[in-house]
Amino acid sequence: MVDYHDLMRDLHVKNDSKIVMLVGDGLGGLPLQPGGKTELETANTPNLDGLVAKGTCGLSMPVLPGIAPGSGPGHLGLFGYDPLKFLIGRGALEATGIGLELQANDVAVRCNFCTLDANGNISDRRAGRIASDDSKVIVEKLQAVKIDGVEVIVKPVKEHRFVVLFRAEGLGGKVRDTDPQQTGVPPLDPVAEDAASQRTAEIAKQFVLKAREIIKDEPKANGLTMRGFSAKPAIPSYQELYGLKAAAIAVYPMYKGLASLVGMDIIGDAADLDQQMEVLKQNWDKYDFFFIHFKYTDSTGEDGDFDTKVKRTEELDSAIPAIMALDPSVVIVTGDHSTPAYLKSHSWHPVPTLLYSDCCRSDACTIFGESTCLQGGLGQFEAKYLMGLAMANAGRLSKFGA
Amino acid sequence: MVDYHDLMRDLHVKNDSKIVMLVGDGLGGLPLQPGGKTELETANTPNLDGLVAKGTCGLSMPVLPGIAPGSGPGHLGLFGYDPLKFLIGRGALEATGIGLELQANDVAVRCNFCTLDANGNISDRRAGRIASDDSKVIVEKLQAVKIDGVEVIVKPVKEHRFVVLFRAEGLGGKVRDTDPQQTGVPPLDPVAEDAASQRTAEIAKQFVLKAREIIKDEPKANGLTMRGFSAKPAIPSYQELYGLKAAAIAVYPMYKGLASLVGMDIIGDAADLDQQMEVLKQNWDKYDFFFIHFKYTDSTGEDGDFDTKVKRTEELDSAIPAIMALDPSVVIVTGDHSTPAYLKSHSWHPVPTLLYSDCCRSDACTIFGESTCLQGGLGQFEAKYLMGLAMANAGRLSKFGA
Repeated sequence: MVDYHDLMRDLHVKNDSKIVMLVGDGLGGLPLQPGGKTELETANTPNLDGLVAKGTCGLSMPVLPGIAPGSGPGHLGLFGYDPLKFLIGRGALEATGIGLELQANDVAVRCNFCTLDANGNISDRRAGRIASDDSKVIVEKLQAVKIDGVEVIVKPVKEHRFVVLFRAEGLGGKVRDTDPQQTGVPPLDPVAEDAASQRTAEIAKQFVLKAREIIKDEPKANGLTMRGFSAKPAIPSYQELYGLKAAAIAVYPMYKGLASLVGMDIIGDAADLDQQMEVLKQNWDKYDFFFIHFKYTDSTGEDGDFDTKVKRTEELDSAIPAIMALDPSVVIVTGDHSTPAYLKSHSWHPVPTLLYSDCCRSDACTIFGESTCLQGGLGQFEAKYLMGLAMANAGRLSKFGA
Repeated sequence: MVDYHDLMRDLHVKNDSKIVMLVGDGLGGLPLQPGGKTELETANTPNLDGLVAKGTCGLSMPVLPGIAPGSGPGHLGLFGYDPLKFLIGRGALEATGIGLELQANDVAVRCNFCTLDANGNISDRRAGRIASDDSKVIVEKLQAVKIDGVEVIVKPVKEHRFVVLFRAEGLGGKVRDTDPQQTGVPPLDPVAEDAASQRTAEIAKQFVLKAREIIKDEPKANGLTMRGFSAKPAIPSYQELYGLKAAAIAVYPMYKGLASLVGMDIIGDAADLDQQMEVLKQNWDKYDFFFIHFKYTDSTGEDGDFDTKVKRTEELDSAIPAIMALDPSVVIVTGDHSTPAYLKSHSWHPVPTLLYSDCCRSDACTIFGESTCLQGGLGQFEAKYLMGLAMANAGRLSKFGA
């Protein structure tokens, strides 16, 4: 059985086309009242509508019907990876989320500070949700932990949460969580689930011993538990699959991290969409593919703030002229999932998607919205096929079979 | 690779939502003349149309394009099981169809009475299609067969057909048919196809010996053949997959049996749709999920009786107000397959389906019919995904990945 990745790997060719994928995080929505308009349908989006009129539309299903994805599987799908096949471990995702770029020899672990009583039993699994500022100081102390033959990286996340990264040759990522999920008992020992992870478990044990010596006098955070051990996920790169030199222009570390997992270069240091457009322009000649991430259509949805999501959608719309001025060969505008303000959370609803190129077989849609996209030329499709469509529209795929 | 059932098992959460799945058996149809209306489109269905206007529609493909399913795979699909992966053996389906509730230690077998000549060769493979009433009397005699360490259950089906069920620890279901598929030769011996079924074959042999002693003087039904040996299919339950306490309200044994195979409770003893609605109401507080089965849209289609199928569809429509009066969170109306009167048989045509909830992303459909559903928000989808959509719309699935 030939799989889609084999097709990409075998059929891709190079040319001087440019592909832009603009992702409005959580772009899809719902009306507040049945029969009403969604956030995207309410927003005034003349630039997107103009592109829709020339392009083709559809609805992208992030995973499968009914499944609401987190940011990890949501973006992997858009990048052309089956999100049910390529799984990013919790530790790897947490590390990625704070901007740690995972290397092939890394094992990342999510850690929690906890409070231990005089007998070494856990009295609070989250160390009283210690304030981030306090936690940060303790995490810095832990950077003193040295383990022979291993580079140890410790970084704060938020409150009682931090990340530990072990960097050394041949470390497996299959180690059991040490959080016993209850109080009144001590943290568990890290136990390897396969031979390749034996050394990782040993290293984790040493880390815990040395860390506890350092923090033993902390009033709240005098212990720690470890969860979600994970090696860097084995994901074939954009270069390998598509032959694309790809760049990511994002503001938040999580999305930079996800892009770097598939081999994109992280470019610029933009703080907003205008600056992202500037980075795009400055780097236009250096890359074949640009992933541009816009966070606020998701965060406003999560807040349940319909009106602000509408405004943020209009902000996204305003980026289109700067993109089109560069004369891209293929433009895709989509989302990694829906985040309806009505639900205040990621949802399973398929995401409005537009694809523009000179050969996209334009459909009858003239407005970018959930109901119009339902009638579009791309139909309803699994997100993992979008990159194949992008490649085809860019003239970057040769035919399959003779 | 994570499969859809893994997702259901891992992501489901519990809440106090109520899901109703109303199945019009064989609901989909065809016009009698090209360009005409189908049975459903001809029927006056104001209640279904009202629900369609608020909900979202689509076409459910029972298995894969072109495949017309029997009741077994048709319902397994609706219940969220890939009908190509979860197979119900013929014996298990026959037993289920007459209301025998299969247990984990059971092996069910379809049996035929046959006529044997003086040499023990089959002269009639169906015992002259002996009348059901006569057959029933002989089957009752067979209930006298005792086998050490095994509970033997014998039940009539129709004409020359009956079911035997062996109940004992550790019986495999892989035993070859004993029907030689020709006359002039004796029935074959039951032969095990794997080690685990050795004892089953031995038990079957003993059963045949003892049964033949009892029926040896019958004029027609003096012998028997055995086919479709099958253990209870290993199907994860609704409780395990979805965390749902589920009930089935059906009139016919086959559908009660199919529902019990996936762990639904069979409730009430309704003889018609009005009584089914009464059972629903009485049990509303006791369950999370209700499967309601309506047979007559299928049987009238099988009869080729277009007009009566239209009337029966209108009867189905009339049940909607009683359901909506209970204020369900999610309502699904669909069929396990199409049964167009034009074809007088089950068909492969996708089945009109509506889903109503407060967050279903309503589409433009206002009439329940094959052509309108083609434009609906659910698109054309494989039936096995319908339960995931039901769960999502009920707020019973957490997100996948972080």
